Amino acid sequence: MSVTLPRTPLYTDHYEYTMLEAALRDGTAELPCVFEVFGRRLPTGRRYGVVGGIGRLSEAIERFRFEDSDLEDLTSRGVIKQSTAEWLADYRFKGDIDVYAEGELYFPGSPIVTVSGTFAECVLLETLTLSILNHDSAIASAAARMVTAARGRPILEMGSRRTHEAAAIAASRAAYLAGFVATSNLEAGRRYGVPTSGTSAHAFTLLHKSEIEAFQAQIDAFGTDTTLLVDTYDITQGIRNAIEAAGPRLRAIRIDSGDLDVMATGARELLDELGAYDTKIVVSGDLDEFSIAALAAAPVDIYGAGTAVVVGSGAPTAQLVYKLVEVEGRPVAKRSEHKGTTGGRKVAVRRHKPTGTATEEVVVSQGEPEPLPGDKRLQVPLFANGELVPQPSLEDSRELLRQRLISIPWEGLKLSPGDPAIPVVQQHGGE
Amino acid sequence: MSVTLPRTPLYTDHYEYTMLEAALRDGTAELPCVFEVFGRRLPTGRRYGVVGGIGRLSEAIERFRFEDSDLEDLTSRGVIKQSTAEWLADYRFKGDIDVYAEGELYFPGSPIVTVSGTFAECVLLETLTLSILNHDSAIASAAARMVTAARGRPILEMGSRRTHEAAAIAASRAAYLAGFVATSNLEAGRRYGVPTSGTSAHAFTLLHKSEIEAFQAQIDAFGTDTTLLVDTYDITQGIRNAIEAAGPRLRAIRIDSGDLDVMATGARELLDELGAYDTKIVVSGDLDEFSIAALAAAPVDIYGAGTAVVVGSGAPTAQLVYKLVEVEGRPVAKRSEHKGTTGGRKVAVRRHKPTGTATEEVVVSQGEPEPLPGDKRLQVPLFANGELVPQPSLEDSRELLRQRLISIPWEGLKLSPGDPAIPVVQQHGGE
Repeated sequence: MSVTLPRTPLYTDHYEYTMLEAALRDGTAELPCVFEVFGRRLPTGRRYGVVGGIGRLSEAIERFRFEDSDLEDLTSRGVIKQSTAEWLADYRFKGDIDVYAEGELYFPGSPIVTVSGTFAECVLLETLTLSILNHDSAIASAAARMVTAARGRPILEMGSRRTHEAAAIAASRAAYLAGFVATSNLEAGRRYGVPTSGTSAHAFTLLHKSEIEAFQAQIDAFGTDTTLLVDTYDITQGIRNAIEAAGPRLRAIRIDSGDLDVMATGARELLDELGAYDTKIVVSGDLDEFSIAALAAAPVDIYGAGTAVVVGSGAPTAQLVYKLVEVEGRPVAKRSEHKGTTGGRKVAVRRHKPTGTATEEVVVSQGEPEPLPGDKRLQVPLFANGELVPQPSLEDSRELLRQRLISIPWEGLKLSPGDPAIPVVQQHGGE
Repeated sequence: MSVTLPRTPLYTDHYEYTMLEAALRDGTAELPCVFEVFGRRLPTGRRYGVVGGIGRLSEAIERFRFEDSDLEDLTSRGVIKQSTAEWLADYRFKGDIDVYAEGELYFPGSPIVTVSGTFAECVLLETLTLSILNHDSAIASAAARMVTAARGRPILEMGSRRTHEAAAIAASRAAYLAGFVATSNLEAGRRYGVPTSGTSAHAFTLLHKSEIEAFQAQIDAFGTDTTLLVDTYDITQGIRNAIEAAGPRLRAIRIDSGDLDVMATGARELLDELGAYDTKIVVSGDLDEFSIAALAAAPVDIYGAGTAVVVGSGAPTAQLVYKLVEVEGRPVAKRSEHKGTTGGRKVAVRRHKPTGTATEEVVVSQGEPEPLPGDKRLQVPLFANGELVPQPSLEDSRELLRQRLISIPWEGLKLSPGDPAIPVVQQHGGE
């Protein structure tokens, strides 16, 4: 990776520095604290969430360092006083962060991230941590449902143009984590090693005097191992032109408009009639998990998903929160009817039948769950005493998610609205 | 601005380079072309869109330059051949870009951006241009409705934690463009001069042994010109504690949970009873344009909006597209029932009554609209012969939008679903 990413200390909400300043002044800044990240609920009807962004979070925390220009900005705009700037000058996070591994499933109340350290060092990481996890988990969670709906057919991610230019890179990564096979986004290829793919847009056909000239130009440049976009003018003629230009060894055609079921069926018949038995059919155009599922019986080989995946298919944020749960070892909690929290550091295990099927997640505050056969502890270290712990590769995380989706009860994979795939049982260690 | 932002040439879809390579090979790369950005429709029920991101787009295009490491990445991963890399080495956009000014309104078919130059130089900007405009316009469009719903009461943007960490910065900027008064996001403050604000979270109260100690710490650090968050435990007691700690000159209290209408009403009565007549009430907690409108009669002074604004309040992307409309002066267009385009470069004017109320937008392809009194031309230069044209400040764009929202028929400001505020009349210059 030869890209230098920006420092992150100002990817933060103003109030984190305000609280820091007040806490430095009254001596509470150094109190040992525990913060936790969790979701109060899943997006309406969803049966599981996928933890995304842990790898990006670790990088972003390593870039949470101050240079003089950062401190000058904060003091000159009156966000902090000089004394606070001096404290920040050699800030680095020296505490511990435990996480649900990237690709792990989560449910309402799962303690996805646990941040332990002084109040001062932990409070500054709230917004950055949430931004990364809320975005990447939302995308990974939506993408995983599309992968299930595709029943083994590959899906390409091509939604960069429909989301913020930097979010697009993270979305590509999250979709790949969830089982997509490639992305259109070149920076995701460079930065995260996600395979990239792409051939041509309608513009390339329109640029040429005729469709067949455009196809010929593409074949001349890339050979027949390419995908021709056949729906610029008339799809039937487009397919005939494609096979005329490329011959029956053409790798694939792509259809980006119309009723994709009807179009794909007609295209398959015509391709077979033209002897192009192995030419694959790629379809794209506002596909989400539901429209992918509806194409199960259509002769489609590859899906291209864009808008729906990068905006989380109806749930653009995971709505995770970052809450203080312990101060000097004593549990603390906000009391509120709708937004209450449970105090105390949590330990989480997932219970399984002997067959390996998950049955429930047990979350114990201020204690340890009673050990049972088939238990899997869900929290692993990300930072220990401020040092980054070596993490699984993106490929490993991808495989972890694949395994986890096999482990939940089959109802958990249904696209229809329903309860979480497994219940989360909250216990108190003192009970 | 002391932040170095990343280069953007790989914030691009793979197929743009594939098309470039094929076009360089067959000589079409140098053909003069016109591409346009437009939306086929507004998000369901919306009556206008707000153009956001033009200022960010101009910066991003200036950062679309290749260093050796970029070209090495593209060639080593097989995206392009060496000959294409050589062509890219001194790439810079040398054409023209005309735009609807940032803060301008748009409607279905409005030619928001017109990019003129060779096919090669224009095709590479597709994804970057769309990513920026689709994100920022979605946020600005949602935020503008919230500002209307607030009827002059100020709104603070505090949604950074619910969206990608870089998208958050752009979202703050777009919300400010739309009339929000400040943001929690510090990087938006530094980079774009958006005023920032923030005081404390529930964590700060929980950190202390009692609520009143926490309030006292905040007052000690910032004086009474601060906002105390009063709903950590019991709101009534919280307000009593706040005034006890700060006295009746306290600037504001904030309520972040519960039925905000009921809570604000009770809070106002209690504050008045305590003599804190000038203490303002800030409310937050999943506010969108509809819940803001519903609080019109409640004694609220300031709104804090988070999730809804940063995810576009149900429309997280503006769904704008980037289409080739002219090659060597001849109009080109995709033919399709659902995704067809109109060929030819467009000129757009907005027509107005003598009172200044807008009546329609006229978009003429391959020609000029018949001039009428009250016409406003909507397209202004952003780049001319590759040189950036001086642009209005963000403050100017904010004022432009404010004026534009006054100029549309009043039905256009209704929150309920409806038709676009004014019709767009498409004409052909040849007619």
